[in-house]
Amino acid sequence: MRNRDNAERKPTILKLGGSAITEKGTPLTPSMSVIRRLAREVSEAEVSPLILIHGGGSFGHPLAEKYRLKEGFRDPSQLVGFSKTHEAMVSLNKLVVEALIEEGIPAFGMPPSSFTVTRMGRVYGLEDKPIRMAIDLGLVPILYGDVTLDLEKGFAILSGDQIAALLAVRLGAERIIMGVDVDGLYTEDPKLNPSARLIQHLTIKDLEEIWRGIRGSSSPDVTGGMMGKILELIPPIKRGAKALIVNALKPRNVYKALKGEPGIGTEITKE
Amino acid sequence: MRNRDNAERKPTILKLGGSAITEKGTPLTPSMSVIRRLAREVSEAEVSPLILIHGGGSFGHPLAEKYRLKEGFRDPSQLVGFSKTHEAMVSLNKLVVEALIEEGIPAFGMPPSSFTVTRMGRVYGLEDKPIRMAIDLGLVPILYGDVTLDLEKGFAILSGDQIAALLAVRLGAERIIMGVDVDGLYTEDPKLNPSARLIQHLTIKDLEEIWRGIRGSSSPDVTGGMMGKILELIPPIKRGAKALIVNALKPRNVYKALKGEPGIGTEITKE
Repeated sequence: MRNRDNAERKPTILKLGGSAITEKGTPLTPSMSVIRRLAREVSEAEVSPLILIHGGGSFGHPLAEKYRLKEGFRDPSQLVGFSKTHEAMVSLNKLVVEALIEEGIPAFGMPPSSFTVTRMGRVYGLEDKPIRMAIDLGLVPILYGDVTLDLEKGFAILSGDQIAALLAVRLGAERIIMGVDVDGLYTEDPKLNPSARLIQHLTIKDLEEIWRGIRGSSSPDVTGGMMGKILELIPPIKRGAKALIVNALKPRNVYKALKGEPGIGTEITKE
Repeated sequence: MRNRDNAERKPTILKLGGSAITEKGTPLTPSMSVIRRLAREVSEAEVSPLILIHGGGSFGHPLAEKYRLKEGFRDPSQLVGFSKTHEAMVSLNKLVVEALIEEGIPAFGMPPSSFTVTRMGRVYGLEDKPIRMAIDLGLVPILYGDVTLDLEKGFAILSGDQIAALLAVRLGAERIIMGVDVDGLYTEDPKLNPSARLIQHLTIKDLEEIWRGIRGSSSPDVTGGMMGKILELIPPIKRGAKALIVNALKPRNVYKALKGEPGIGTEITKE
C-alpha cells in the first residue's frame, strides 16, 4: 500500500534545534509561538516526503543532567531519570505533533528509543521499516533526540542531529535542512568579531582544509554545538545530500529553505 | 550492560484493558482513580521483569471509528485520523506512565506503531531488541494498543491483546495477567442468567471442547471481546505461560494476581 509518488521521491529531512523551539533558560518550557509558526511554514511549503526531527532544548537537557544519563547506567536510581527524561521529550514531541496536525499535516510521533539501539552513544541498530512505510503512505514522521538503550553503557543520549544524518544516509535524502538559532556558519565568531561574514556556501573539501588547519585565520567558526552538527552531516553530504543551515527563529526562513529558495543560510555540498 | 537477575528471569506480562482505565462512555476520558490505584498495586507487588500493556478504551476507539481506520487506507483524508488516533493513545499512555513514575516505577512508554509492521492487522514484524534491553536493565516498558503501518491495508489497528500474547511468546513469559472489567469467565452470561458461576480454572483442552460444541449448555460465556482475548492467549498458553483473567476494577486484585495469590479470577493453563 503505497503512495506511488512518495515511494519514488527522495525525502527531505528537516531538523529543528531544541534551542529554537524551547526557551533555553527555563526547564520544560516550549516556545509555542515559534512551534506554531514553524508548523504553518511546514504546512505552506507542502514538501513530501518529509521527515521532521527535533531536539530537546530545555525539555531534554536539565533532566538528563540531573540523573547523569550521559555517563550511562551506574546506579538503579538513574532508571527513573531515564523514564522522566524520555517522558519530557514525549511532552515536547506532543506539542510539535499537535501544532502540525492543527495545520493539517498528518504528523506521526516516533520516539527513537523504541526502535533504536546504540553502542557508546552511536546508533548500532535502527528499525526503519515503519518510517519508510509511513512516508510512502503520506504521513510525516516526527522524531527527536531521545534516550536509548545502549549495548555498552546501558543507556545513552542520542542527539537529533545524529538521527537526522543517519536517516538521510539510509533513505537517500535529497536535502537536510538544519533549523537552528543562528544564521549559519560565519568566517569568524560574530560575537567576538563584528566584521565576521556569513558563509553562503561550503564544500566538504573546504571543511577538510579548515580542519587540517590550512585555512588559518579565515576559518569559519565551527566550534561547540555547530562543530558537532557539521561532523554528523558529512556522511550524508558525501553521499550527495545538500545540507542547509538556516536560522529557524527568523520567520519564513524554514519555508524558503523547504521551497528551495537560495541565499538563506549556509549551504554545504559535496563539491 | 545487564541486570543479571532480570536477564535470567522470565517476564510477567500485565495487560490492563481500556475499559478498566478509561470512562467507557465519554471520549478521551481517563479513569484517573483506577490508573493511580493500579500504579500503586503494581509498585507494591515489586514484580520484575515486568511489561505492561494497556488498551485504548475511550481514547482509541472513537477517533479510529470516525476515520474508519479499521477499513485500512482508502483516502488521504484518513491520514490525519491516523495521526489523531495515535496521539490520543500517546496521551493515555502518558497518564499511565506518569502515574507509575509517581509510584517510583521506571516506566518507559513504547508505542508499538514505531517498531511494528502488520499484515492485515496481524503482526508481521516487531523489533523487540529495545524491549529486551529495557527489561534487562530494570525498566518497565509500557506498550499499548496502537495504529500500525500495514503491508496490505496501508494502516491497521493493533490490539493490546495481540501485542501482549505475541510478546509473551517471544520473551517466554511465565504469566500473562489480563486485567479487565469483569471477574473472569463464567459458565454462562451472568447478565442473562443469575445462576452463572465464575470458572476458576480452564485448560486449553477444555476450551477446544467448548469450541467444538461438545460442552453444549455448560459452555462458558466466551463471546465478543472475551472470545477475541482467549483466542489471542492460546499460543502463549500452549508454550507454557499461565494466563489469568482478573477484574482490575476491584481493588487489590491486580496486586494479588502479580503476587501469585490463588483464586482471584479465571486461570487458563496448558494442561
